[in-house]
Amino acid sequence: MIIVMSVNASTREISAVIARIKELGYQAHLSQGQERAIIGVIGDDRRIPDPDLFSLMNGVEKIMKVSHPYKLASREFHPNDSLVPLNGSMVGGKKVVVIAGPCSVENRTQILETAQAVKEAGATALRGGAFKPRTSPYAFQGMGEEGLELLAEAREATGLPIVTEVMEPGLVPLVAKYADVLQIGARNMQNYALLHAVGESQHTALLKRGMMSTMEELLMAAEYILSHGNERVLLCERGIRTFETYTRNTFDINAIPVLKQRTHLPVIADPSHATGKREYVAAAARAAVAAGADGLIIEVHNHPENALSDGAQSLTPEQFGKLVHDLRRLAEAVDRCM
Amino acid sequence: MIIVMSVNASTREISAVIARIKELGYQAHLSQGQERAIIGVIGDDRRIPDPDLFSLMNGVEKIMKVSHPYKLASREFHPNDSLVPLNGSMVGGKKVVVIAGPCSVENRTQILETAQAVKEAGATALRGGAFKPRTSPYAFQGMGEEGLELLAEAREATGLPIVTEVMEPGLVPLVAKYADVLQIGARNMQNYALLHAVGESQHTALLKRGMMSTMEELLMAAEYILSHGNERVLLCERGIRTFETYTRNTFDINAIPVLKQRTHLPVIADPSHATGKREYVAAAARAAVAAGADGLIIEVHNHPENALSDGAQSLTPEQFGKLVHDLRRLAEAVDRCM
Amino acid sequence: MIIVMSVNASTREISAVIARIKELGYQAHLSQGQERAIIGVIGDDRRIPDPDLFSLMNGVEKIMKVSHPYKLASREFHPNDSLVPLNGSMVGGKKVVVIAGPCSVENRTQILETAQAVKEAGATALRGGAFKPRTSPYAFQGMGEEGLELLAEAREATGLPIVTEVMEPGLVPLVAKYADVLQIGARNMQNYALLHAVGESQHTALLKRGMMSTMEELLMAAEYILSHGNERVLLCERGIRTFETYTRNTFDINAIPVLKQRTHLPVIADPSHATGKREYVAAAARAAVAAGADGLIIEVHNHPENALSDGAQSLTPEQFGKLVHDLRRLAEAVDRCM
Amino acid sequence: MIIVMSVNASTREISAVIARIKELGYQAHLSQGQERAIIGVIGDDRRIPDPDLFSLMNGVEKIMKVSHPYKLASREFHPNDSLVPLNGSMVGGKKVVVIAGPCSVENRTQILETAQAVKEAGATALRGGAFKPRTSPYAFQGMGEEGLELLAEAREATGLPIVTEVMEPGLVPLVAKYADVLQIGARNMQNYALLHAVGESQHTALLKRGMMSTMEELLMAAEYILSHGNERVLLCERGIRTFETYTRNTFDINAIPVLKQRTHLPVIADPSHATGKREYVAAAARAAVAAGADGLIIEVHNHPENALSDGAQSLTPEQFGKLVHDLRRLAEAVDRCM
Repeated sequence: MIIVMSVNASTREISAVIARIKELGYQAHLSQGQERAIIGVIGDDRRIPDPDLFSLMNGVEKIMKVSHPYKLASREFHPNDSLVPLNGSMVGGKKVVVIAGPCSVENRTQILETAQAVKEAGATALRGGAFKPRTSPYAFQGMGEEGLELLAEAREATGLPIVTEVMEPGLVPLVAKYADVLQIGARNMQNYALLHAVGESQHTALLKRGMMSTMEELLMAAEYILSHGNERVLLCERGIRTFETYTRNTFDINAIPVLKQRTHLPVIADPSHATGKREYVAAAARAAVAAGADGLIIEVHNHPENALSDGAQSLTPEQFGKLVHDLRRLAEAVDRCM
Repeated sequence: MIIVMSVNASTREISAVIARIKELGYQAHLSQGQERAIIGVIGDDRRIPDPDLFSLMNGVEKIMKVSHPYKLASREFHPNDSLVPLNGSMVGGKKVVVIAGPCSVENRTQILETAQAVKEAGATALRGGAFKPRTSPYAFQGMGEEGLELLAEAREATGLPIVTEVMEPGLVPLVAKYADVLQIGARNMQNYALLHAVGESQHTALLKRGMMSTMEELLMAAEYILSHGNERVLLCERGIRTFETYTRNTFDINAIPVLKQRTHLPVIADPSHATGKREYVAAAARAAVAAGADGLIIEVHNHPENALSDGAQSLTPEQFGKLVHDLRRLAEAVDRCM
Repeated sequence: MIIVMSVNASTREISAVIARIKELGYQAHLSQGQERAIIGVIGDDRRIPDPDLFSLMNGVEKIMKVSHPYKLASREFHPNDSLVPLNGSMVGGKKVVVIAGPCSVENRTQILETAQAVKEAGATALRGGAFKPRTSPYAFQGMGEEGLELLAEAREATGLPIVTEVMEPGLVPLVAKYADVLQIGARNMQNYALLHAVGESQHTALLKRGMMSTMEELLMAAEYILSHGNERVLLCERGIRTFETYTRNTFDINAIPVLKQRTHLPVIADPSHATGKREYVAAAARAAVAAGADGLIIEVHNHPENALSDGAQSLTPEQFGKLVHDLRRLAEAVDRCM
Repeated sequence: MIIVMSVNASTREISAVIARIKELGYQAHLSQGQERAIIGVIGDDRRIPDPDLFSLMNGVEKIMKVSHPYKLASREFHPNDSLVPLNGSMVGGKKVVVIAGPCSVENRTQILETAQAVKEAGATALRGGAFKPRTSPYAFQGMGEEGLELLAEAREATGLPIVTEVMEPGLVPLVAKYADVLQIGARNMQNYALLHAVGESQHTALLKRGMMSTMEELLMAAEYILSHGNERVLLCERGIRTFETYTRNTFDINAIPVLKQRTHLPVIADPSHATGKREYVAAAARAAVAAGADGLIIEVHNHPENALSDGAQSLTPEQFGKLVHDLRRLAEAVDRCM
């Protein structure tokens, strides 16, 4: 951490800052520039309760943080890629995994048919929501536990592991009973009670980036889960909110190489939410694989035109089959496989 | 809801859309323009599970929504201002209320001293967090129930009602036992399980706008609470996230007149979070009152330089006292009182 | 400027950075922390062509800038408020000035009637566009020089000085012949050839913040004008672009206290563009004055319902008259006058 | 265009709107819904000077636009891909073109060496700035005409056509004398005088999307050029501004399939600006090709560590050579070539 003094700071003000640093148990390093003084804090300043407090001292202009606030998630302290097992593959390795299925579980036929179709097309795992976060209290909120049971039946039938969302800490044990991967949705990325509960569950977590969260905040959310000893965390870029209105979200494709550089955790992309429109999903999925994503999560519905949610961004099984076929060629061209 | 057909849509495609509308139990109204056809859906289309599905039909270019998705929160269906009682005043009436206190409850002396100070300066209620949402798992997370007990003691000592945050549905009964107003924080604005629980509690709610949320989403979050029969909801504008970096958030001052026009619920402003720096809080507070806010929530700490969180945006009791004094003059100039 | 080395940087890499700093004619100051080394560059680093280049050196993690990139615009080096004369008042002093008039000059009657009306209501200056930046090539582009002549006639009739936009460097001499204040529009805030030409004109400039520009970029654009020796620059906050859609722009009210703190230049607010809807203009104007704005620029049209541009955000003369009346009371309550 | 009446609009108010529509020479189509009336305007409403004016009429809630504001740029009215010739290839066809070179022309050796290197690596054209838009008036502003002469010399030596920026309308003739493609920079996307001049020049234009401009605004800027009869317009996605700070811009990869769907114009991607850091350029370039871009524009410098601008995002010739090699494999995997 560095404390930048203002141009007109007095010697007394500088001394007071240094004294305060020492009081907190750190060493201070003064660097007197031509224009202003700069004071470095030596020691692990992650332990300072609120570094911004220095900005209240007279003569201080601003505080600049040097260390990353995340540690367990950081590649600096964990250089090798983390590999997370999923259906016999290791996510984060050479294989690009594909999680596919409907937004919501709607009924037995729908989920079984879709599961079978995505399995045949080459999916690694089945997604499907039983508990759904919906903007409107009047919208379909998911089938609840009955949906979880249908997912379990689909797993039985296809062998595909289940990825499904959990929305509140109290439901983690129930959802974990049925699911192979606990999805934490974008709106819940900073629901700390939920992160805590999922961290303690020791279940694999798929953590979606909030739609207006920075990558640093995503890594800090992962840090919450990791700090409970649960190391099986998959990060997911699913589009962020910007001023653009032609698409539902703006797919932050940069996040893929940036996260791969900063963290050892696998990075999944969600081209369905990142675009919000079926006709753009294939292009976004290709871009994600080309940029280095370790996996994709794609919405597929046996009859999108009847879906209770997200139909407009869901592929048909045929479209999904063609996409996986195209992605296989592409994956090879970037030395991955599918 | 209006379905805009593409320029090249065929008669058959138009008929198919009309047939689908009728199938769903609505009437269709076709308007053939010079360039393209437009089809209106007649009836309460809030009941259509997913209006975007029409965009999957051939020849459809886009869907445009006409009705607001919120109803109970809407001034259209509830023209008169809702008044919410707080400490003998009615929030939403002529008086501008002021909720003040520290970010977090830290210890007995701190909360009692600060409570006394804000009471003397003219605050209507005391704020203070016992459960704190923190970006980092390593940061101070609040005192928990002990903090709630100290808040209750501060209420006892000063008569000020307590506003405090609840972060998970399972804790609503506990927090409601101590608090007069349940605050739902910005990160939890779309934590639907929490909105549900607060709705059912019938306790007054202070609902903060998410830093990444539109006003429409804020109104939909309020709709969740209202739909459980809890009508005592205070909306709070606390700054949104933009590209600007000189301030912690961008205070969306427009939200005050816009929300006052669209909803009957009272609107509170939080100049502390909306700016993030102590030196800008007074200007932002004045702006909020001038723009028509029904109340303010302001961070005050007896010793900001020692605060465990948000000290950099906390006023001292003296600064707060001066601000309330200035705001009284201002309130009169806009025909309000404090 | 500070160069942050990565955790794993070698001694050789650190030495290379220091050597490079010296090569550029600066002194280097090494601070070895527990986790990583930090190197300060001593001297006026604004002269380094591209500080980011250090990030290409091995072992460098990031570059952090310490000095502000603006100097002439900075209050650090020019502590007293700059006062800019306008119609017998000094903008930046105690009086809050009001610039009012139509978006575009449309015809003789319109501009003369509106000028007379805003003069009577208490405006300090008349605004009106003769050259208009329009998103569509098919929209009305302004009356050009004929519009400037009508503005001059309106000045003749009312005594109000003229504020009008100039859109290209080649037209600065022409517009300056008629106008008292040259407005640089939001879309042209970084049109450097235009800033250069306006700088050289020595005419008072009203520089609007780009809808996509940070405050720092606004100050750097002002620096362009100031660096040509033209010190009469008025900054204007007119709303920025965000994800919110209920208003045309998001009025960054924080910009008023922040700019007043960082620069000596006067700060004007434009509540018409900052909201985009007539019904919100008064609330935004009040907020601006309460937050400390030195002036307002407001769109007024004698018949908004017939305006060729921006009618939806224009006040009628009656609405404007009432607003000025209300603002006078408000200005007094914050120790200003109008 | 559709006019949505408010729930409480009276019959008289509805009639007044209809009368106004007819007065403007259009037909009105009333659709009376359960909750509110909706009025369609029949005819080419692009000719209405300001559609928002209807929002000033009593009882009107909002205006919804149905037609796209662009026409010449639209695929609706021009279904086939436009092909723009460049160095013997057709941009917009099967081949993915690569424009490469330094941010700025700095001296003879630099530009000749870099030109030779990118030519050998397989570039289609050479980029290099002679006139540079810089945020700071104190930064290097380009070599001006001398830079253009060096570019011409590099073309002579390598056969590569020249892409260079023009920043003001008065300089279009000069720059067009040397350049094969006139680049309009992101900051100038809405510099209408410049768009006009480039439109009239009939020179190929490379139009960069503004960093906070919507795709619709980009298409409207292209419409300005097209409306002057210049059909050789290349659109360029170069990253937009968001709240994310780990990268210089957010690469809106969605823009590639969306623009390809909405317009017939070729779409180029700029992975250098879209990321701002050398280490992410390759991933972004791969993503762009996978998403369907018709070309890339990439910053390459013979000695990035000495560059006067943008060195941190410039590739070395070796890195560029390797990237082109990798992209060739990738292009084949999506049925394109390079």
